[in-house]
Amino acid sequence: MTVHRKLRMGMVGGGPGAFIGPVHRIAAELDGRIELVAGAFSQSAKRSCEAGESYRIDPNRAYRDYQAMMEAERKRPDAIDFVAIVTPNHLHLPVARAALEAGFPVMSDKPATATYAEAVELEGAVAKAGLPYGLTHTYAGYALVREARAICASGQLGRVRKVVVEYLQGWLSRALEATGQKQAAWRADPALNGPGGCIGDIGVHAFHLMEYVTGLDTTGLNATLRTVVPGRRVDDDCTALLALENGASAVLLASQVAAGEGNGLRLRVYGESGSLDWRQEDPNRLRLKWLEGAEEIRHAAGPYLSDDARAVTRLPGGHPEGYLEAFAVLYREFADALMAWKQGEKPALPPTLPGIRAGVRGMKFIDRAIFSNQSKSWVDF
Amino acid sequence: MTVHRKLRMGMVGGGPGAFIGPVHRIAAELDGRIELVAGAFSQSAKRSCEAGESYRIDPNRAYRDYQAMMEAERKRPDAIDFVAIVTPNHLHLPVARAALEAGFPVMSDKPATATYAEAVELEGAVAKAGLPYGLTHTYAGYALVREARAICASGQLGRVRKVVVEYLQGWLSRALEATGQKQAAWRADPALNGPGGCIGDIGVHAFHLMEYVTGLDTTGLNATLRTVVPGRRVDDDCTALLALENGASAVLLASQVAAGEGNGLRLRVYGESGSLDWRQEDPNRLRLKWLEGAEEIRHAAGPYLSDDARAVTRLPGGHPEGYLEAFAVLYREFADALMAWKQGEKPALPPTLPGIRAGVRGMKFIDRAIFSNQSKSWVDF
Amino acid sequence: MTVHRKLRMGMVGGGPGAFIGPVHRIAAELDGRIELVAGAFSQSAKRSCEAGESYRIDPNRAYRDYQAMMEAERKRPDAIDFVAIVTPNHLHLPVARAALEAGFPVMSDKPATATYAEAVELEGAVAKAGLPYGLTHTYAGYALVREARAICASGQLGRVRKVVVEYLQGWLSRALEATGQKQAAWRADPALNGPGGCIGDIGVHAFHLMEYVTGLDTTGLNATLRTVVPGRRVDDDCTALLALENGASAVLLASQVAAGEGNGLRLRVYGESGSLDWRQEDPNRLRLKWLEGAEEIRHAAGPYLSDDARAVTRLPGGHPEGYLEAFAVLYREFADALMAWKQGEKPALPPTLPGIRAGVRGMKFIDRAIFSNQSKSWVDF
Amino acid sequence: MTVHRKLRMGMVGGGPGAFIGPVHRIAAELDGRIELVAGAFSQSAKRSCEAGESYRIDPNRAYRDYQAMMEAERKRPDAIDFVAIVTPNHLHLPVARAALEAGFPVMSDKPATATYAEAVELEGAVAKAGLPYGLTHTYAGYALVREARAICASGQLGRVRKVVVEYLQGWLSRALEATGQKQAAWRADPALNGPGGCIGDIGVHAFHLMEYVTGLDTTGLNATLRTVVPGRRVDDDCTALLALENGASAVLLASQVAAGEGNGLRLRVYGESGSLDWRQEDPNRLRLKWLEGAEEIRHAAGPYLSDDARAVTRLPGGHPEGYLEAFAVLYREFADALMAWKQGEKPALPPTLPGIRAGVRGMKFIDRAIFSNQSKSWVDF
Repeated sequence: MTVHRKLRMGMVGGGPGAFIGPVHRIAAELDGRIELVAGAFSQSAKRSCEAGESYRIDPNRAYRDYQAMMEAERKRPDAIDFVAIVTPNHLHLPVARAALEAGFPVMSDKPATATYAEAVELEGAVAKAGLPYGLTHTYAGYALVREARAICASGQLGRVRKVVVEYLQGWLSRALEATGQKQAAWRADPALNGPGGCIGDIGVHAFHLMEYVTGLDTTGLNATLRTVVPGRRVDDDCTALLALENGASAVLLASQVAAGEGNGLRLRVYGESGSLDWRQEDPNRLRLKWLEGAEEIRHAAGPYLSDDARAVTRLPGGHPEGYLEAFAVLYREFADALMAWKQGEKPALPPTLPGIRAGVRGMKFIDRAIFSNQSKSWVDF
Repeated sequence: MTVHRKLRMGMVGGGPGAFIGPVHRIAAELDGRIELVAGAFSQSAKRSCEAGESYRIDPNRAYRDYQAMMEAERKRPDAIDFVAIVTPNHLHLPVARAALEAGFPVMSDKPATATYAEAVELEGAVAKAGLPYGLTHTYAGYALVREARAICASGQLGRVRKVVVEYLQGWLSRALEATGQKQAAWRADPALNGPGGCIGDIGVHAFHLMEYVTGLDTTGLNATLRTVVPGRRVDDDCTALLALENGASAVLLASQVAAGEGNGLRLRVYGESGSLDWRQEDPNRLRLKWLEGAEEIRHAAGPYLSDDARAVTRLPGGHPEGYLEAFAVLYREFADALMAWKQGEKPALPPTLPGIRAGVRGMKFIDRAIFSNQSKSWVDF
Repeated sequence: MTVHRKLRMGMVGGGPGAFIGPVHRIAAELDGRIELVAGAFSQSAKRSCEAGESYRIDPNRAYRDYQAMMEAERKRPDAIDFVAIVTPNHLHLPVARAALEAGFPVMSDKPATATYAEAVELEGAVAKAGLPYGLTHTYAGYALVREARAICASGQLGRVRKVVVEYLQGWLSRALEATGQKQAAWRADPALNGPGGCIGDIGVHAFHLMEYVTGLDTTGLNATLRTVVPGRRVDDDCTALLALENGASAVLLASQVAAGEGNGLRLRVYGESGSLDWRQEDPNRLRLKWLEGAEEIRHAAGPYLSDDARAVTRLPGGHPEGYLEAFAVLYREFADALMAWKQGEKPALPPTLPGIRAGVRGMKFIDRAIFSNQSKSWVDF
Repeated sequence: MTVHRKLRMGMVGGGPGAFIGPVHRIAAELDGRIELVAGAFSQSAKRSCEAGESYRIDPNRAYRDYQAMMEAERKRPDAIDFVAIVTPNHLHLPVARAALEAGFPVMSDKPATATYAEAVELEGAVAKAGLPYGLTHTYAGYALVREARAICASGQLGRVRKVVVEYLQGWLSRALEATGQKQAAWRADPALNGPGGCIGDIGVHAFHLMEYVTGLDTTGLNATLRTVVPGRRVDDDCTALLALENGASAVLLASQVAAGEGNGLRLRVYGESGSLDWRQEDPNRLRLKWLEGAEEIRHAAGPYLSDDARAVTRLPGGHPEGYLEAFAVLYREFADALMAWKQGEKPALPPTLPGIRAGVRGMKFIDRAIFSNQSKSWVDF
């Protein structure tokens, strides 16, 4: 029997001033499968309450902290079905662990944890709990990223030889964290964010996208992390060379001091006979260049797209879908996995939805990059 | 006192196979102010019921027809707050009239009605009811369309001299209506769609966008409507010259047989000292070209944007918003207007939200274009 | 026997302050087949002499007028092989006639003459002389225009249904002719330019490009010409609907008051199964969109291009060629035709090189457009 | 007194099958200041003769080798004014040395020599001869590269923090050199090309462009060179991190196995308050992004451009200039320098024209990159 009610989500984090909390709310609800019904939105009970009001949820379900939420929700007949984690990074592990222990599946913002050691710990906790755990590497939700992944898997490009992935932002070109801007402040504080700055905030997205699309694991890297803005406590500009398992080489550029850039995530994959090029700021097109044929642009909703890409397209061609829609794809896949699990299946996520493995690899990437930078040399992965 | 609950929406139309119904559901709910709770989704009670299930609403609120919905909902303590109309065009007037007579505000898909005469009748009904009536000319919801409108109003371009608006699609390049494709079938049937084909389906969007952005009313036009695909019963390719109230001239191209095009709506406005260029398929950029300075690209969420544009941006720069987000802007403005009206204010829509005036002008455009085409001459508007 | 010397060119017009004269010099010489050796560059003997110096030709071959040039050159053993005409339009006919009568082939800047009647006269003179006559509709020299032409001829797009050609410039947005700017002054003077302003200066290029690429003749048109800038004596903004011989319809937009535009010539051709899109400001790419397949971008020098396109490409892929190179293609074809004629062949131009037929049709277009505008109706072509 | 005759060029290299020889011929002659009159086009006398014929020069001036050319030309009253070197790299030094010793100024294709040691030797020879020596780093001739250079010099971007320069080609994705293709063959032979493959062929262009535009010298680098195509004897894919004198960091990517790429040279420079972005395949636009203002696109021939950029623009806005025109800019500057030198001035090249210093730095870059790659570490520059 199909459950026709919406799944109920409890959110931790996402209180006043947050950017990513409301994004999770929209994304979770967009496809009509999930509704936000409870939350511990802030470490201040008062602000959590205000947030609950702004989300228009039952005031009784805006909790003073995540422990209280889990405690109370467990007992309700209409309990939340899972927990979404949207806090600063240092809380990802404790909240996820508490949720899993309380029997709640988890959908977590990235990175999985604040440190690599924590990620390994969390991996154990997920395995032990046997519950679905999803990680919102948003960019994996774009239809044309799915298409790019399908193309790599199909072998159309020939063996992959070279990858260039860049993630360039400019918003931290000045010491914004010194002005009290909330988004900048926690990111620039190693205690809240973990040891990586730019590498952890966006480098890890670029890393994930690269492995996700190519299907290739990294086996070594040589990274240089710089802190360009005086006084900043974390890196804000990173370059890494990566060796991939098939002998290919990747270059990863991540910067938050690339003045003028918005959210410039771009992936290029070069194979023996052709290449692909995807840009997050123009997400509904995928460019393919061939050694011998004309350049091709595949458009979202094109009838010629792979099943994986078409499965996540909502609108006809020429109707742009964006960041929120990509985010919502992950929630939709999570909802499907959750329904299957509720009906007795093992909590296997679909291969298109990032989970704890991606989380551990991402944290390992940060860890290895910092180590490589310190030792000024190549390191194994 | 602010009402913190979500507004309740009842939908007419949007049953199985519909494209625009689910779009309205997403758009209405996206900003967390509205929830779909009831509907008469199909003219078949069984299919209406199925649709209700897919929308995950209370089975008791999936009605067999719109009359039943209005009748029943009026009596509920948790009645719907307004009616969304997403049926084929010929039902827009009867449903809207019934809703207004039952005291429900209306949010209608475009065009307002099937004929100009109906639009005039509806205008009277709206005035008489004194209730909010919104029209989802989606493209008016894009942040950079708002920016373009603010630029025209500011006089930065100088007096407007020339406008080029084009809306090119290719999906009706073949006689799709003869294959039973639902979207094509009703659009190609004058009894369901009204007398205009392409001119009514997309030409009216182009017309609205042009007047909306420039702030200029049309005073005359000379239109040529063609039916390119053999056997089709309505026009599928249109060209119109328009005279604008300030003496400027506009060219409007609309086609559904422009093979290879997706949803190519584009507006260019040329003034004395510069011009603007907006393309729906690349909606987060607005191009400005100046007689003497460098070309400019304004990006969604740019700190330099007008208040009107920034008011409808949800994400930081570089995070693409698309069609659904633009649609949701209209619902958000409608929700605000509804709240104000509930609190005793007159039902004045904000000038940025298309309402019955836009609906009447759009229907008049179709009517005049058909007449001009028949008489092969300029006609007054 | 192949003649290995360069062909010798005598130029009429192109004196100090001219734009197009130096362009012809570069274009003619670019491929190493032609050299400028003589000229009557100005109606002032002194300025003609100065121009000769700037072109670094023999001072004895900088003539005081074109009659003197033809008279003197006929007698030289190293006489010029042909005459290039780059004067204002009103001199095109007399110079061409004089050259043909003196036995010199002609390469003329467009339009062929100042009026349609003159063009018909010139057509007779060309036929009578039996000499090569070429017309520099520059845009026909671009490799990807050649590709577009080959695609239309091949039937890949299916039957052509709709054409949109636009040529938008902004440089006459102000009354530049009133400031003494030479380029603007003669173009705004009907005595020098002929009766058409924008329609004759650039509209005719758009018209030619449309017929050249589609291979379809125009059979009727409905044009509106406007004079937007107060005090201007010729039209500066034009819109025309054209009926094509196969039943297709074309829209032609030309404007010189499109503030902010540079040299925005663009052609879109829509067939039953796909469309092509070429833009002069991005000339090394040709976009193809298909009803069912992915969008394609063909690049100059692509190994997949047609013979016609590859024949006029000089550089490997990714090395941009531009306006001068396109211009030079026409001179190269003219040089080849001239060599063939010198070796006894009839002066048949290759079909890719515009000649007197294109000249007559262009002038007829201007004539018909002016008449249609005056009569506010469709006219036959 | 100004010399009004054209300067006479003698070319070494550029025989049948050559790509760059004809390019130099066109570029040299394009602006009407120079003419090719002599050459030693091939190491085969017969082929040199054939080449002379194809260039339409006096058969007596197509020499069997460069020594013969210099010997003979010295004695002519109409001797060549300078020597252009377009041979494979291993001949650059001997030909340049011979020319300088014979009193002929030199315009050389890049790289200056085959090895760094040779470059140092050549630097001495240039200094000793006291003659003009130019190096055709073509990309320095584009108007918008000049604009980019002027912007960096002006400080508008603030202090430069990060540079990304990439030069991606795909044409060597297969072992083309094994097929006998001439262009591939000599480039893949260290004896003809020097020790660097991709790094020397195109990496050096990217390196030059970076230093040329930013005005910053490199002080250290860490390079990785790979040979991707099996059996190839030189590198075909390179990545380098560079430390710049002001503390900024640059990333340089060069590849000839980036399947599908044409001639993808692109430079991005990030400063404290904005950035610039120039792409060789779209050379008439320069993109500027600002931390706080709208993105800007500067167009070739824009009235707002710097003097340096406007000085090298030949056509009005919207008329694309390309690779040949950029190349011709260097020859024009060289011609001006040559005229000044002939009139007694010291042979100072303008700072915008690459000369022997750029040649030495380029060869040092290759040398240091190879050493860094071997030692797998940062090296001083």
